[in-house]
Amino acid sequence: MQLAFSAAEIAVIVQPLSSKGSTSATVQGIASLSSARPGDLSFLGNPKYKTEVAATTASIVLLPPDYTGEPAPDQQFLFVEKPSVALARLCARIEQLLWPKPAPGIHPTAVIAADAHIDASATIGPMCVIEEGVVIGARTHVQAQAFIGRNARIGADCWLMPRVSVSTECVIKDRVRLQVGVIIGSDGFGYEFMQGRHEKVPQVGNVVLENDVEIGANSTLDRARFSRTVIGEGTKIDNLVQIGHNVVIGKHCLICAQAGVSGSTTIEDYVVLGGQAGIAGHLTIGKGSKVDGQTGVNSDLAPGSFVKGSPCMPYNLEQRFNVLKKKLPDLFKRVDALETVAEELKKSSAA
Amino acid sequence: MQLAFSAAEIAVIVQPLSSKGSTSATVQGIASLSSARPGDLSFLGNPKYKTEVAATTASIVLLPPDYTGEPAPDQQFLFVEKPSVALARLCARIEQLLWPKPAPGIHPTAVIAADAHIDASATIGPMCVIEEGVVIGARTHVQAQAFIGRNARIGADCWLMPRVSVSTECVIKDRVRLQVGVIIGSDGFGYEFMQGRHEKVPQVGNVVLENDVEIGANSTLDRARFSRTVIGEGTKIDNLVQIGHNVVIGKHCLICAQAGVSGSTTIEDYVVLGGQAGIAGHLTIGKGSKVDGQTGVNSDLAPGSFVKGSPCMPYNLEQRFNVLKKKLPDLFKRVDALETVAEELKKSSAA
Amino acid sequence: MQLAFSAAEIAVIVQPLSSKGSTSATVQGIASLSSARPGDLSFLGNPKYKTEVAATTASIVLLPPDYTGEPAPDQQFLFVEKPSVALARLCARIEQLLWPKPAPGIHPTAVIAADAHIDASATIGPMCVIEEGVVIGARTHVQAQAFIGRNARIGADCWLMPRVSVSTECVIKDRVRLQVGVIIGSDGFGYEFMQGRHEKVPQVGNVVLENDVEIGANSTLDRARFSRTVIGEGTKIDNLVQIGHNVVIGKHCLICAQAGVSGSTTIEDYVVLGGQAGIAGHLTIGKGSKVDGQTGVNSDLAPGSFVKGSPCMPYNLEQRFNVLKKKLPDLFKRVDALETVAEELKKSSAA
Repeated sequence: MQLAFSAAEIAVIVQPLSSKGSTSATVQGIASLSSARPGDLSFLGNPKYKTEVAATTASIVLLPPDYTGEPAPDQQFLFVEKPSVALARLCARIEQLLWPKPAPGIHPTAVIAADAHIDASATIGPMCVIEEGVVIGARTHVQAQAFIGRNARIGADCWLMPRVSVSTECVIKDRVRLQVGVIIGSDGFGYEFMQGRHEKVPQVGNVVLENDVEIGANSTLDRARFSRTVIGEGTKIDNLVQIGHNVVIGKHCLICAQAGVSGSTTIEDYVVLGGQAGIAGHLTIGKGSKVDGQTGVNSDLAPGSFVKGSPCMPYNLEQRFNVLKKKLPDLFKRVDALETVAEELKKSSAA
Repeated sequence: MQLAFSAAEIAVIVQPLSSKGSTSATVQGIASLSSARPGDLSFLGNPKYKTEVAATTASIVLLPPDYTGEPAPDQQFLFVEKPSVALARLCARIEQLLWPKPAPGIHPTAVIAADAHIDASATIGPMCVIEEGVVIGARTHVQAQAFIGRNARIGADCWLMPRVSVSTECVIKDRVRLQVGVIIGSDGFGYEFMQGRHEKVPQVGNVVLENDVEIGANSTLDRARFSRTVIGEGTKIDNLVQIGHNVVIGKHCLICAQAGVSGSTTIEDYVVLGGQAGIAGHLTIGKGSKVDGQTGVNSDLAPGSFVKGSPCMPYNLEQRFNVLKKKLPDLFKRVDALETVAEELKKSSAA
Repeated sequence: MQLAFSAAEIAVIVQPLSSKGSTSATVQGIASLSSARPGDLSFLGNPKYKTEVAATTASIVLLPPDYTGEPAPDQQFLFVEKPSVALARLCARIEQLLWPKPAPGIHPTAVIAADAHIDASATIGPMCVIEEGVVIGARTHVQAQAFIGRNARIGADCWLMPRVSVSTECVIKDRVRLQVGVIIGSDGFGYEFMQGRHEKVPQVGNVVLENDVEIGANSTLDRARFSRTVIGEGTKIDNLVQIGHNVVIGKHCLICAQAGVSGSTTIEDYVVLGGQAGIAGHLTIGKGSKVDGQTGVNSDLAPGSFVKGSPCMPYNLEQRFNVLKKKLPDLFKRVDALETVAEELKKSSAA
């Protein structure tokens, strides 16, 4: 998308504490300090890039208040409390241009059950299928080709992107954002082994997403065997994540891409799971714990744990092991040498 | 969903061997022993929760025949051979309420090729696309927005959930259940490296799912390079699993979430793959083998193997290593100490 | 699909250097040497199967020029420069039969914005949704139920399979092939932690797929926070792969199934990532590097690296460790023994 913000418009959006220099350029893009060209806005989000500010050719640069350099000709410095937050504010403005608020209403191609209750201020996109008893709240936007199963309830101000599927009886509260392809309420993986065959254990619970949850593209959240699979308020889940049946995740957690949580595990508030991490079933991961990428967790974690490895150990121990691992070939040689010395000493001692 | 089963109705469904106590409550939910409240049914599925039975406030509790305690007032104990099986029977009843059997017929919005043959007892949901030459068997239910490609054949009593895709020429036998977003017959990942580029090797085989196979949400099964990718009878596959081209999986296997099987590998009957396990290509995994979660398998496994780690070792050896791993910092210190002693002994021996 | 190629037709397709023997059979399938039956074509693609040629009952066998055996009665040997390439040529012919080139035009059920520009030679399948400002190039085939968001641009000769989603402003160049369920342009996973909550950082960049890129089923590619996420010319990505925001991948890379690349990482040309490999964010993976399956990369890799393990080490070191790992229980015993000897020697030395 071609952006076009004047320096004055940028100032209105980011509300700087102060500024230095000026530019006549129109901001047409955002770029990192090193790749920015005239017409771009850049920012110092991480102190390690501080030395790149002097050389950047960005027309506008967002900087922390303590930055001391001077702008180049036709370049403006805007000093803000947190450049990354100011940038986010600008991006939020751009986001509105990328996805303009749609007009309320139901696309004529959508197939809607007669008894579904869709708020008059909601928007339902083309090719959606909405079954019996579904409730959709105010200002919620369901994009194209979504599927909402019988009796599912979706709150206000949600955004369901194309091809989202919400299965029978699932509940989604307010301001929830589901990326393309998310699946809410697939069957849990439960079987009883009987007479040489795996007999299905019906999965008759549901999934509940609390307020302000976001779920990434193509992630899958299984309905409970009975009762509920729950994602707590404000928790954000990345792409291709698997959440098993009866999992309960607390508030304000971050679950990175391709992580998996097995059935009946409880994850308390403010936990962070790194990418491709795996959590076994029937565990409790204590509040504020951090699980590193690719880590495997097979036992409960106390609150505030920081773990790494598969199976995991405390982060510092695992990192210590990773250092020693490199010295292991040498250790074997040292033990070889000691055995030779011991043999000689035994001989000379016996002599 | 609001359940409402009387104690008498529950007894008809679970068919207890005997009972103790009685309740006037209507069963409105199912819950674990510790979280159950009056109006819930609970069960003792795992002996480790035995002590929780006395304190549960569930109105009805399913128990094994040898449980000896007494019910509370307005509480009924139902003794059954296997509580988990009795619960599954109740859940199967609830499942029928969640997903009532749809009426046969083709939704008017579905796009069906003129020469597709759809059994009169089958149900085809809204927005489905069914191409030329497709055959769909008796009582099969294809939910909304599914795609069935040219000449694919689907048997009787299957259930394809919304947004399932079955590609050209693939074959699905009877009683197969595919969760939302399953992809059957994507291209295998095959290229020849020629003149600095990866040239595609066309993938012209298909995928065959035998009777009673179930596949989890958003899993992907690649069509064979030529010939067939096969999933054997009764095998159950969880969510977000990747099955490569020309893989042959035997009967009654369990493949847990996010596991991946590379091309041309054979997995024999009754194998269990844990979550996020990875199997390299062109291997044979012997009958009844168990592969732990996050394990990486790079060589053939004899029947009955139980492996763990990446690359895997026999389970007991890997667990032994995981114990020794924690003692490794100490081992380095012990070798340091031995070297000091050896140095001193050499000196005193030379003296 | 029932194939039916005469020996003469096969010869026209694979163009052999020479032949031996002849067959009257019609080729109805392709199979490996050991599983082939009369009516099948087979091939010697890997020298390790050389001994299987004499016993195969395939009617036609593709062989390298230096193969010296004789065909059986009613069997034909075709000698070709590279049997696997000759087979690929045959499979390309079969592929045309599996997916015949569709007629140009827009299916009447597709919902197309008035100002979308779709080339007259393109094909748009049923139930597609194409939003405002979209451009679709010559001969591109968009299959059923795809979603193309506002202002996305798709080049010539692309093939988007069913249920592909291309989000707002994303750019796809020429001859790109996207398997079923691919998601281009989902939001990157970016949040600022403020006052106990994760506040969304809007993701307003896009994704650019250069010429000849292929992406596997249900893979997800996040749009940039700002600027672009880029997949270079000729790069092939397998199923269920996650590409984070602002990732830049070079030319002619191979990314195997279930691998994940975190945000802002640069992967240079000709890199190979094995299945389930994970690359942390903000790294550079040098040209031609190979990352083994399930490997975790936490630091930059020099060009030509070959790494394994999590966290990774050079391949040879990791493999050396994997050998020593098995000897670790023995090493502990050896150190125990040395300590006993040292104790005895100290005593006798003191005596």
